[in-house]
Amino acid sequence: MSQSRTRSARRNLQITSPRLWASLMEMARIGGTPKGGCKRLTLTELDRQGRDLFINWCRQAGCSIKIDRMGNIFARRAGTDDSLPPVMMGSHLDTQPTGGKYDGILGVLGGLEVLRTLQDHGIKTKHPIELVNWTNEEGSRFAPAMLASGVYAGVYTEEFAYSRQDSEGQKLGDALVAIGYQGKDEMSGRKIHAAFELHIEQGPILEDENYDIGVVTHGQGIRWYEINLTGFESHAGSTPMPTRHDALLGAARVIEAVNSIALNHAPLAVGTVGMVNNYPNSRNVIPGSVFITVDFRHPTDDVMTAMEQELKAAVVKIDRDLGITSEIKSVFYFPPVAFDPNCVDAVRRAASDLGFKHRDIVSGAGHDACYLARVAPTAMIFTPCVDGISHNEAEEISEEWAAAGCAVLLHAVLESAELRES
Amino acid sequence: MSQSRTRSARRNLQITSPRLWASLMEMARIGGTPKGGCKRLTLTELDRQGRDLFINWCRQAGCSIKIDRMGNIFARRAGTDDSLPPVMMGSHLDTQPTGGKYDGILGVLGGLEVLRTLQDHGIKTKHPIELVNWTNEEGSRFAPAMLASGVYAGVYTEEFAYSRQDSEGQKLGDALVAIGYQGKDEMSGRKIHAAFELHIEQGPILEDENYDIGVVTHGQGIRWYEINLTGFESHAGSTPMPTRHDALLGAARVIEAVNSIALNHAPLAVGTVGMVNNYPNSRNVIPGSVFITVDFRHPTDDVMTAMEQELKAAVVKIDRDLGITSEIKSVFYFPPVAFDPNCVDAVRRAASDLGFKHRDIVSGAGHDACYLARVAPTAMIFTPCVDGISHNEAEEISEEWAAAGCAVLLHAVLESAELRES
Repeated sequence: MSQSRTRSARRNLQITSPRLWASLMEMARIGGTPKGGCKRLTLTELDRQGRDLFINWCRQAGCSIKIDRMGNIFARRAGTDDSLPPVMMGSHLDTQPTGGKYDGILGVLGGLEVLRTLQDHGIKTKHPIELVNWTNEEGSRFAPAMLASGVYAGVYTEEFAYSRQDSEGQKLGDALVAIGYQGKDEMSGRKIHAAFELHIEQGPILEDENYDIGVVTHGQGIRWYEINLTGFESHAGSTPMPTRHDALLGAARVIEAVNSIALNHAPLAVGTVGMVNNYPNSRNVIPGSVFITVDFRHPTDDVMTAMEQELKAAVVKIDRDLGITSEIKSVFYFPPVAFDPNCVDAVRRAASDLGFKHRDIVSGAGHDACYLARVAPTAMIFTPCVDGISHNEAEEISEEWAAAGCAVLLHAVLESAELRES
Repeated sequence: MSQSRTRSARRNLQITSPRLWASLMEMARIGGTPKGGCKRLTLTELDRQGRDLFINWCRQAGCSIKIDRMGNIFARRAGTDDSLPPVMMGSHLDTQPTGGKYDGILGVLGGLEVLRTLQDHGIKTKHPIELVNWTNEEGSRFAPAMLASGVYAGVYTEEFAYSRQDSEGQKLGDALVAIGYQGKDEMSGRKIHAAFELHIEQGPILEDENYDIGVVTHGQGIRWYEINLTGFESHAGSTPMPTRHDALLGAARVIEAVNSIALNHAPLAVGTVGMVNNYPNSRNVIPGSVFITVDFRHPTDDVMTAMEQELKAAVVKIDRDLGITSEIKSVFYFPPVAFDPNCVDAVRRAASDLGFKHRDIVSGAGHDACYLARVAPTAMIFTPCVDGISHNEAEEISEEWAAAGCAVLLHAVLESAELRES
């Protein structure tokens, strides 16, 4: 079959949107919250139920199952040349404590819908196709986030991952054994032909600008800092303004500086102070010490470095002006990711062929695909989400958005896995 | 005896500094902390022990004891005309949870040293002299502060005071009965001839400028506000800067505004944001709501009103610039106090006569004297404290400062109570 005939045959293939939506809703019942969100923390009994359901569905779709030592589940659909490296899809089924029904889950069940569609039509591909559910993407029970895809990509050791503890002191390794999901299959180290992660945007851009699909070209680099500001605790009534050393006033100035630094590097930079712990936090005491966190993101390392220098300079000036002492610690670095141009092209082509309004976009959040990109040609597909809300029980998408994302995933995977006459 | 002879006789009278210091140290052992501070919360068993010791000392100094229904203890030394209104001294023996040895205690035991000195020399005064220990000045176990002097002055009802609860739900009225200090004597409503409260400054001015004595002319007015800022919680990575509604950035701007407003009304105004509660307080989430408190103080109501207007205007602008919504609530008002000019003159004269370096000063903190001033001609005497530190186990004063403050108290009281030939 010629290239154009193949492409046209692929384009006619359609996913079954109500089936995808029904599966999303069924999975959402496991850990469903009264507010319509989902609480399915990684490696809990609810996560086990979700995994069992997922495996059951994948087997029904004709897949074989393998589970690695991190509990990552690989559902495999054979290729006509099954010795070739697989085309991968997938994301994660775990959620935040007050999470939604789609963050991660859309990428897993969208992949399932791809597999079901191929089965419905008896379609064969040259390359095998694998659908993955990554363990502990959220990092909210066991920090850090994207832990098991990180192990897969060689970023973390298994020992490090196993030793992570939740707030009650349980170790990740023990939790994995407890729910019966510590597998034995050796899955990493293999060559992967291409990999695609479908995900909700978790930001407002696509919806605001009325796009159906985001073609994710880059993942933002992330740098996290912790700043301890130390001033001098004293009485709010009897300490004249010129003799104060107000650590909270210092923190306020750092918050303003972080905002300005991000704006200096518009439009792609973001900067956020998310945490403030103020001491002694009493209404008639001038705060003596304050802890804040800073989150900087940008798709290039040069700009991230400039932002760090601007932050340090701002803090030196604030310290000097207020007579306080601030200590900046760099606590996390996630390098910018440039996704594989061929995979990105496959996504863009699929979106165009299907007639979806699409734009290139940078992922501001971290995803399993950002680690996978270190060991496989990888790209991501974004769908809009309502008001950009995510990590929230109010997280919402439309059935149409889910179907569009899934269709793009199907066609990008089909192009990469090479459709064969059925 | 002529006025000048009386004044000269008074000036020769000296307190016994080591005795005052020893009493301060003995009282500090009741609730003494390993760090050298004191934890003697109001109406606890330790407070009972402190009260018992105080009463014992007062009886030894020749006083009769009365206790009112709020547990305020009045130690009375008769005057030659005992029907005349008394001259009052006093402060409080209760402390903060991590408090010091002097805040309040110096005013009570300094008054005791005055009584002991009069007894030593068999001195008679025309007016009776009363030394008071006020219940629950600190307000840290039962809010609000200065509660029992407030009841004495008619600011609060007894029922209101009795119904105040500590963090474990115990009512003040029950705690008072439990330690056996709910008296029956009716002490308020009487005419008082003059009242003096000796207290540590709780600020850095006197020590910084090398003064022995602060002649307190005014008490700052205090206004407390609570501000709830509501923005929109969203993902720190995937929300572009222009679409954010960051409640914490709003709070940072309010903190800066509060500082500027106080500086606009230099040198007497102070403004403090002491509390910040940030939600959800997660390093990769743009804060959706923030609670802060504002404390404004100034000795005149006109300026306090101007400061409030400036705060409200600043918040309107911040809301508009950031697309957030802030609600300001006024939660506490303590009017400025102008102390009685004759009593203030008596303090200033005593300090001058004794050769102490003194300056007029405004009290930034609230004191029992601020309420007492509503029903009696009142003034305060400040002594320096090291680095202005108070409400802290590190609170410190020198024996010389304590002695100077006590000597000024003695001579101000003697002038008011009218020395008689002994």
